[in-house]
Amino acid sequence: MNFQTRLRYLEKEKESLLCVGLDPQISRLPDGVDRSPDGVLDFNIEIIKATSPHAVAFKMNSAFYEALGPDGLEVLRLTREMVPSNALTILDGKRGDIGNSASRYAEAAFEVLGFDAVTVNPYLGRDTIIPFLEYEQKGVFVLVRSSNPSSGDLQNLETGGIPLYMHVARLAASVDPGGQVGLIMGATFPDALRSVRSEHQEIPILIPGVGFQGGDLCACVSVVTSSGDVLINSSRTIIYASNSEDFAEIAGREAQDLARRIRHLWVHGISHHDP
Amino acid sequence: MNFQTRLRYLEKEKESLLCVGLDPQISRLPDGVDRSPDGVLDFNIEIIKATSPHAVAFKMNSAFYEALGPDGLEVLRLTREMVPSNALTILDGKRGDIGNSASRYAEAAFEVLGFDAVTVNPYLGRDTIIPFLEYEQKGVFVLVRSSNPSSGDLQNLETGGIPLYMHVARLAASVDPGGQVGLIMGATFPDALRSVRSEHQEIPILIPGVGFQGGDLCACVSVVTSSGDVLINSSRTIIYASNSEDFAEIAGREAQDLARRIRHLWVHGISHHDP
Repeated sequence: MNFQTRLRYLEKEKESLLCVGLDPQISRLPDGVDRSPDGVLDFNIEIIKATSPHAVAFKMNSAFYEALGPDGLEVLRLTREMVPSNALTILDGKRGDIGNSASRYAEAAFEVLGFDAVTVNPYLGRDTIIPFLEYEQKGVFVLVRSSNPSSGDLQNLETGGIPLYMHVARLAASVDPGGQVGLIMGATFPDALRSVRSEHQEIPILIPGVGFQGGDLCACVSVVTSSGDVLINSSRTIIYASNSEDFAEIAGREAQDLARRIRHLWVHGISHHDP
Repeated sequence: MNFQTRLRYLEKEKESLLCVGLDPQISRLPDGVDRSPDGVLDFNIEIIKATSPHAVAFKMNSAFYEALGPDGLEVLRLTREMVPSNALTILDGKRGDIGNSASRYAEAAFEVLGFDAVTVNPYLGRDTIIPFLEYEQKGVFVLVRSSNPSSGDLQNLETGGIPLYMHVARLAASVDPGGQVGLIMGATFPDALRSVRSEHQEIPILIPGVGFQGGDLCACVSVVTSSGDVLINSSRTIIYASNSEDFAEIAGREAQDLARRIRHLWVHGISHHDP
């Protein structure tokens, strides 16, 4: 079963489009959790247990694990192992390097760490994406339009009558052997999201930037099509929902609530009022 | 002393523009070296000892260390520690992420691993570069034109009358607080290298792609200016110069020879015949 088929199957089974971002910082761990790499692992395990009934995927941003020091990659690997088999795992490393190096990143993500999918930065062109696609069961989300304020510095530059990010979406779609490639489109730019979806109906879209970054949930869900799904990621709003010892319970409730709001928009159609 | 000043000082002191790329793969380790992460560390230490008289910097591509497994980051850290203080260390991770995550990558590179400089992918715009610049003593090389065959997929797209990579060079130069930013220009595209240098006379340029990738040494050295240096990187040609137990000695000779050829071009001016 390829990545896209697994994603679709799990989304139907769980009636959820939610991806939970596990991006922990030691300085932000709640009360009662040891401020160490081991504490981060304990924190992650509790968050996974509480949120996995509502999440179809977990995304881990590599930066937060590398910042933990040499033990960071082991915490990342063990965190990935703790995700139950009815949720997908995405390594958000935004790697982008030339062929030989990209192959090593693919090896690290898929063989060493065992993730189901990765995120990739397209600036180096197709060479940087293809080594990841050699793992036929795995998913590759290509960064098209990011959610940050300065994302337009380059992504919005017009070339050949369309913005650069539209070229990136076409490049990503063109290298997909089928069911392996997805696109990343920040929730903070709903117009860009709609234009990309209108050209690429069948490809899954991973949407970060809901919650803390202020992205529009309604716009995100509106781009689910009959053949192309979305995954809506929320990190800080869920994992830091409470700073006390009840953090896991509150994170679970936050995930349930967000998954329910998304489902409502998804199943009952989109109105302009987010329930 | 900021990064650019240190680089210039070391280049004058050692009369070298050579950067040695330490990108080891277990499967390519020479005879007599243990095929394990510990073996990689031993290999690196021998290569550093043999080549450091001729190298002004060592660049380590993170991909090769991540592929070693959870011990990889410790091998990377220890390798960095073995570089003598009269050579600079560059972590080639090509990271590019939004502000909060970019800060974690900066923390990992500069605080956890202790590198002098990093490489950064600009696709997310200035937000992704600025967190690295907050470390005032450190260097940040922004990827402008990469050396791989498909680098033109996006980098060559014309926008506003110039190719995208020229915009990237301008963006990078515009965020430099002074002496911290460098550009990465693959040796395989000498015309691009010359156009970028003609617009940016004072900024250091890191040039990968000499040797195995076939870049033109003469073109690389020709863009040294009175105020803007270059660093010419060679990885595979040096570290895999011999597959036998004499690997360190032969790597040392290869580094010495390349540094000498570069110096000849640099000191005696450029002719069209590489001596």
